[in-house]
Amino acid sequence: MPIFLDATDPDFETAFAGLLAAKREDSPDVDDVVAGIIADVRHRGDAAVLELTAKFDRLELTAETMRFSPAEIEQYCAQVSDAERAALELAATRIRAYHTRQIPEDQSWTDDAGATLGWRWSAVAAAGLYVPGGLASYPSSVLMNAIPAKVAGVARLAICVPTPDGVVNPLVLLAAKIAGVDEVYRIGGAQAIAALAYGTEAIAPVDKITGPGNAFVAAAKRRVFGKVGIDMIAGPSEILVIADKDNDPDWIALDLLSQAEHDESAQSLLITDDAAFGRAVAAAVDKRLETLERRAIAGASWRDFGAVITVADLEQAAALSNRIAPEHLELCVADPESLSEKCVHAGAIFLGAFTPEAIGDYIGGPNHVLPTARSARFSSGLSVLDFMKRTTLAQMTPAALGAIGAAAECLANSESLEAHGLSVRARLDRLNEG
Amino acid sequence: MPIFLDATDPDFETAFAGLLAAKREDSPDVDDVVAGIIADVRHRGDAAVLELTAKFDRLELTAETMRFSPAEIEQYCAQVSDAERAALELAATRIRAYHTRQIPEDQSWTDDAGATLGWRWSAVAAAGLYVPGGLASYPSSVLMNAIPAKVAGVARLAICVPTPDGVVNPLVLLAAKIAGVDEVYRIGGAQAIAALAYGTEAIAPVDKITGPGNAFVAAAKRRVFGKVGIDMIAGPSEILVIADKDNDPDWIALDLLSQAEHDESAQSLLITDDAAFGRAVAAAVDKRLETLERRAIAGASWRDFGAVITVADLEQAAALSNRIAPEHLELCVADPESLSEKCVHAGAIFLGAFTPEAIGDYIGGPNHVLPTARSARFSSGLSVLDFMKRTTLAQMTPAALGAIGAAAECLANSESLEAHGLSVRARLDRLNEG
Repeated sequence: MPIFLDATDPDFETAFAGLLAAKREDSPDVDDVVAGIIADVRHRGDAAVLELTAKFDRLELTAETMRFSPAEIEQYCAQVSDAERAALELAATRIRAYHTRQIPEDQSWTDDAGATLGWRWSAVAAAGLYVPGGLASYPSSVLMNAIPAKVAGVARLAICVPTPDGVVNPLVLLAAKIAGVDEVYRIGGAQAIAALAYGTEAIAPVDKITGPGNAFVAAAKRRVFGKVGIDMIAGPSEILVIADKDNDPDWIALDLLSQAEHDESAQSLLITDDAAFGRAVAAAVDKRLETLERRAIAGASWRDFGAVITVADLEQAAALSNRIAPEHLELCVADPESLSEKCVHAGAIFLGAFTPEAIGDYIGGPNHVLPTARSARFSSGLSVLDFMKRTTLAQMTPAALGAIGAAAECLANSESLEAHGLSVRARLDRLNEG
Repeated sequence: MPIFLDATDPDFETAFAGLLAAKREDSPDVDDVVAGIIADVRHRGDAAVLELTAKFDRLELTAETMRFSPAEIEQYCAQVSDAERAALELAATRIRAYHTRQIPEDQSWTDDAGATLGWRWSAVAAAGLYVPGGLASYPSSVLMNAIPAKVAGVARLAICVPTPDGVVNPLVLLAAKIAGVDEVYRIGGAQAIAALAYGTEAIAPVDKITGPGNAFVAAAKRRVFGKVGIDMIAGPSEILVIADKDNDPDWIALDLLSQAEHDESAQSLLITDDAAFGRAVAAAVDKRLETLERRAIAGASWRDFGAVITVADLEQAAALSNRIAPEHLELCVADPESLSEKCVHAGAIFLGAFTPEAIGDYIGGPNHVLPTARSARFSSGLSVLDFMKRTTLAQMTPAALGAIGAAAECLANSESLEAHGLSVRARLDRLNEG
C-alpha cells in the first residue's frame, strides 16, 4: 500500500516532510575499485580495457574488434523490424526539431563608453556517450543524448555500450546510426569512462561524457569530472501527477505505473482535490498490478514510495509540487496551462489528459534526461547547451579605456593587486601623452 | 626563468605536451575533516556553526550576531572612500548591463502533428554566495557572483564571508549592498557551506551555492553537490597572451604579471610570432619584478609556470591556444577579430592592445568567474543561466496523440516497458472508440 495523506490533516506537514526526505537509493561504495580501474586504464591503456572487458563482460576483444565496424553496424541494423525503425526515425526527427530550437545566439554590441562586448557559443569538440548494457540498454536514451550533441555541432561523438557475453541490442546501434554517432565501442563500466576521459591507443579522449550507468559508471564519472565535463548523476526516476476527478482512474494508474516499473526505487505520487478519486486511482493501480509484466518491480516501488495526497484545491497542489520539484509533472486538470504557470520547479511538465508521460520518454520532442531527487530546484534537463560553451568577448577602444579604465585601476588597488592596476595605468598614461 | 619554446623545434611537441600536463596545484586532502564538519552542522545547527567559528576565526558570535544587521552594514559602507564607491557602482552598472542580455527567452510552438511544445525558464529560489575572508576577500567577486543571480531573479541571496578576529572588509559589504544581496553572515569555511546547503535555525537553506574558497570550502562544495547546485571548482588562474611585435613589451609584461601576482600556482603564457619580441617581454617582466609589491608571488609563478612560445605565424598561435583552452586570452595583434574567430576554446577573449585583462576582472561587463585548467573545452564562465533552470513543456491534443502515439507504444514495447506502452494505448483506444 502506498501512503495516503490529506493536506488538511494537522500532522500532514510532518508526514509530507518525511516523504520529501525519504532516501530511496542505497548506492554501494565502489569508489576504491573505480579509482583502481581508472589508474589502470590511464597507465596501461587498451591492454587494461581489454582485460577488464574479458573479466566483467566475459568477452575477448582486441584493440581492433573493440570498435563496431561499419559493416557490423549495418548487419545489426538490418535485424530491426520496419515498425521499430519507423518509430525510431519519427522519434529522432521530432527530438531533432525540438532541440534545434535550443541553439543559442551569439551577441555583440557596442555600448555608450565605446566598448564592444558580447559572447560567442561554440560546440564541445568531442563527446562520449555511455549506454548501459543488458536490460537497461535503451535506444531512446541513445537518441536523447546523441541528438542534442549533434545539433550542438559536436564533431566527434563516441558511444560506449557494454555487450556482456557478446549480446548486442540492434536497436541501440540503429539509434546511434540514425543520430549520426561517429564511433561505437563495445566496452562498459568504469573502464569505458576512463578510456573516454583519458584516451587509450585505440580511443581518442573526449571533452564531455554523458549518459546513465550503474554505480561503477556513476563513481567513474564523478572521478573524471574536471578532466572532462559530465552531465548530472541521475537518481531513481519520479513522477508527480496532479489530477482532478474528471479523469479516467485507469489512465492515471498507468501513468503512475510507467514510472514505478522502471525501478524499485522509483517514486510515483498523485495529488488530487478529490479523495474518492484518489482511492479509485489506487484501486486501478492494484488491478493493473495483477497482470503487469514488471509487477514485481512496479509493485515494490508503489508500495514503498508511492503516495496519494488529497488537497483542498489546485493552488495547494501547485505549492506542494514546488516543494517536491518533480522530475516529471503531469497536469490532468481542466486548465493545465494556468496550473503549469504556478509549477516553477519541475524538470518536464506534461499538460492535459492526452499527454501521458511516456510520450515524453520517446517521441514528444523534449529531452527525457531530467533532474531527479528534487534537483529541478536548481538544474535542467539535458539540452544542446550541455554540449556547447560560451566565450565572452570584450574590446576597448582607447577612448573606452579612457572612460572606464581609472575605475578598474581604483578597484585593483583596493584589492592590493598592483600589476592589475599598472596594466591599465600604463595604457592610460600613453593616452594622456598622445 | 620561464621556459622558452620554439614551435618549429623538432622536440616542441614533447615540451608543449609537458606544459599542458603540468600539475600546478597540490590540494591538501581535507575531505575527512570536512565530512565531519558537515555532519556536525546538520546535526547541531547553529550551535555547531558558532563553535566552529569561535575555533577557526577566533570570534564569539550568537545566532543573532552571526548576521550583519542593516545598521552595521551602513556603518561599514560609510567607511568606503568616494572614489572606491563610484568605481564599484560603475562596475556594478556595467556588469548588470552585460548580464541582463543573458536572460534567456521562453519558447512555445505548435508543430505539424498538433503538439504544443516549448520550455520555460525560471530562477533558482534561493542562492548562497561564498566570499573568502582575509587577503582574497575581493569585492569584485561579490559583484560578479551576486549580480547574475539578481538579474536571473533569485529572490533570496545570502552571502557568507568569514571575518577572522572580527576583521571586516567594508568594500565587500558595500559591493553586497550595491548588488542587492539580502543576507550577509560572518561565517566561513566548510561550516558556512554546510549551513547554506542544509540550513540551521538561523539560516534558511539555499538551492545553489557559488563563489571561490580555500581547500575546505572546495571540498565542502563537492560534498553538498546534489543536495544543492554548485558552480565550478576553480583552479589557479591563467592567461595566454598572443602578441605580435607591434606591442609595447612593458604592457604585455604587466598583463602577464597581473595573472602571476594572484597566486604562485597561476600561469602566464605568451605566444608571439617574433622571438626577439618574446625576449623583450621577458626582460620587461624581470624589470617590473624588481619593484612589484607582490613580486615574491608573481616571480614564483612566472619562474615555475611561465612560458614564452615563438610560432611561425598566427594560425599556429590559434591552434596552440585551442589546445591550451585558456581561462583568459588576450589578442594583441593587428586584426584581433579575425584571430578571435579561430580561438574557439577560451573562457574570455580580450581583443586588442587597449583591452588589458584587468579590465575584464573589474569593469568590462563580462563575468570574471571563468573556467580554469583547460575546462574551457567544455564549460563556460558564470552567467545568468547558472541561476536559472528550464522546464520543458509538452501538450498533446487527441489528434496529436493519434498521430504519434503508436510510435511511442512501439518503442516502449521494444524496451519491455509495458506500462509505458499501455498508458498510451489506453488513450488511443478511447480515440478509436470515439
